Amino acid sequence: MVYIGVDLGGTNIKAGVVDSDGQLIRQSSIPTAYPRSTEEICDDIVMLSRHVLEQSGFSVNQVAGLGIGCPGIINPNTGVVEYWSNLSWRNVPLQRYVADGFRDVFPVLIENDANVAAYGEFYAGSAKGVDSAIVITIGTGIGSGVIINSKILNGHFYGGGEFGHMVIQHGGRLCTCGRYGCFETYASATGLINLTREEMERSPGSLMHKLADGEVNGRIAFDAMKQGDKAGTRVVDLFIGYLACGITNIINALQPEVLSIGGGVCNEGDALLLPLREKVFREVYGSPFLQSTEIRICTLGNDAGIIGAAMMGIEVV
Amino acid sequence: MVYIGVDLGGTNIKAGVVDSDGQLIRQSSIPTAYPRSTEEICDDIVMLSRHVLEQSGFSVNQVAGLGIGCPGIINPNTGVVEYWSNLSWRNVPLQRYVADGFRDVFPVLIENDANVAAYGEFYAGSAKGVDSAIVITIGTGIGSGVIINSKILNGHFYGGGEFGHMVIQHGGRLCTCGRYGCFETYASATGLINLTREEMERSPGSLMHKLADGEVNGRIAFDAMKQGDKAGTRVVDLFIGYLACGITNIINALQPEVLSIGGGVCNEGDALLLPLREKVFREVYGSPFLQSTEIRICTLGNDAGIIGAAMMGIEVV
Repeated sequence: MVYIGVDLGGTNIKAGVVDSDGQLIRQSSIPTAYPRSTEEICDDIVMLSRHVLEQSGFSVNQVAGLGIGCPGIINPNTGVVEYWSNLSWRNVPLQRYVADGFRDVFPVLIENDANVAAYGEFYAGSAKGVDSAIVITIGTGIGSGVIINSKILNGHFYGGGEFGHMVIQHGGRLCTCGRYGCFETYASATGLINLTREEMERSPGSLMHKLADGEVNGRIAFDAMKQGDKAGTRVVDLFIGYLACGITNIINALQPEVLSIGGGVCNEGDALLLPLREKVFREVYGSPFLQSTEIRICTLGNDAGIIGAAMMGIEVV
Repeated sequence: MVYIGVDLGGTNIKAGVVDSDGQLIRQSSIPTAYPRSTEEICDDIVMLSRHVLEQSGFSVNQVAGLGIGCPGIINPNTGVVEYWSNLSWRNVPLQRYVADGFRDVFPVLIENDANVAAYGEFYAGSAKGVDSAIVITIGTGIGSGVIINSKILNGHFYGGGEFGHMVIQHGGRLCTCGRYGCFETYASATGLINLTREEMERSPGSLMHKLADGEVNGRIAFDAMKQGDKAGTRVVDLFIGYLACGITNIINALQPEVLSIGGGVCNEGDALLLPLREKVFREVYGSPFLQSTEIRICTLGNDAGIIGAAMMGIEVV
């Protein structure tokens, strides 16, 4: 038997066929093409799923379940997308639409996309084999998902797991959510770019100006640091300090067995991970006397969403 | 059948007899009298438990279980106190000592004291009847306990639930834990007193000077505010702002059904609760579109520890 995972986003719909070990056999993608009707989007989810299933050489009768990860507030019990701001979805019965499209031949499950990506890392990636994990994805914002006792912890009203919107600097930078000083305003890729820009303004002689060549991105400070640039080193220290602050908060609160970080900045590898671990170890509650959470880097990349969605169909004991 | 709950602290050992509804029938207390040997303290736990049981008119055969709440890192699976800094306990087999003292006639369970107090509020107090609750106790520091799906969530290495040591002001006030800017350095009773002192220095004409009469406590700013004092009002606003910041962080992260706050400052009632709810409602993720956590005030006071410890013996379905 195989499992279908769907990663429904504002830009693309991705679907993949996954085996019971969490290995992605085949995947395919189409544009979400919003604005258009909910029915058309749901029809395309079914069409794309059928297409990728056929391409992978399996039939509908060999599918044990289909899972969908979707942004917003998702009620997995009713199968309803209660709220998804980007597509202006309110109370869309996504699970029912898709289950109807397959005539209820197999169960269809839906969950929040960040939770599903965390579940992918837990089931088949960096946190495989542990019993509790938190996954932090460092992108334009900071997404997060929590797995406790092998289950997704999504909050009583399905809106939990928003560690990106934990204030670490009371009265600090304005966040898109309306609060001031959220973790994601400092420790996301956007935050890193802002810190880089500010330091570049203060340091006209920094190598970062040459590396940027007009376009500032999240790699410049790291690249400058590796070439001995002091201003670049300051940016990286500051950024990792903010990241360590938020991660230490999360560990003090929930102390999972593993905390995995993902997103483009993790391509920096040990230049990020080693100082991050050191800062967190120094600050975490009970250190150095007590054992605590291990910090790892995600291994599934952009496939985590599809794999996690698919694997929702398997009950982990 | 009845249950025995023990609240083991650095100053006092308290024990009580509790019925299956979580009603405290009788309690008694003796000094912990540290420094003295672990064996002597454990013998006193057994002695005090027998004493209060006798006083309540029940016999050992009518006891269904005994629970102990203890500060520090407690492993409920092995029954060992792994670390309790105040009493310099390392790897003390507390559960075994006490079970031996009662010749294993009933099961003995141990847990961290803040978790146990949260469980008391969940089982018989402000969060009765819900499925997930977080309890924040505002005292000298900030203690917290997390109940998810009717179970205590204590972290993989039994050191989770430390929301007091969540930084909300990166680089802020030094905390006893070694970090800078922890929630408890601003929103504990100690934090409130510090904010009061600072505002009093800035405002020599404030009513707070008269009310303090040499001794600054956590009530002065609230009392001054109620009499129209502007400096007192500023302190209260600032304090509730910090408290709301940390509580909003917790709700964004875990979104329990109920979040209860306890501790002396809660005697202020609506003067605290109403502006706190308003600030949190304004900031919490997804507001005002989505339903979220309800904030309540704890109802069990200092009995929460004994009741929660006792009720660990009952499996909540």
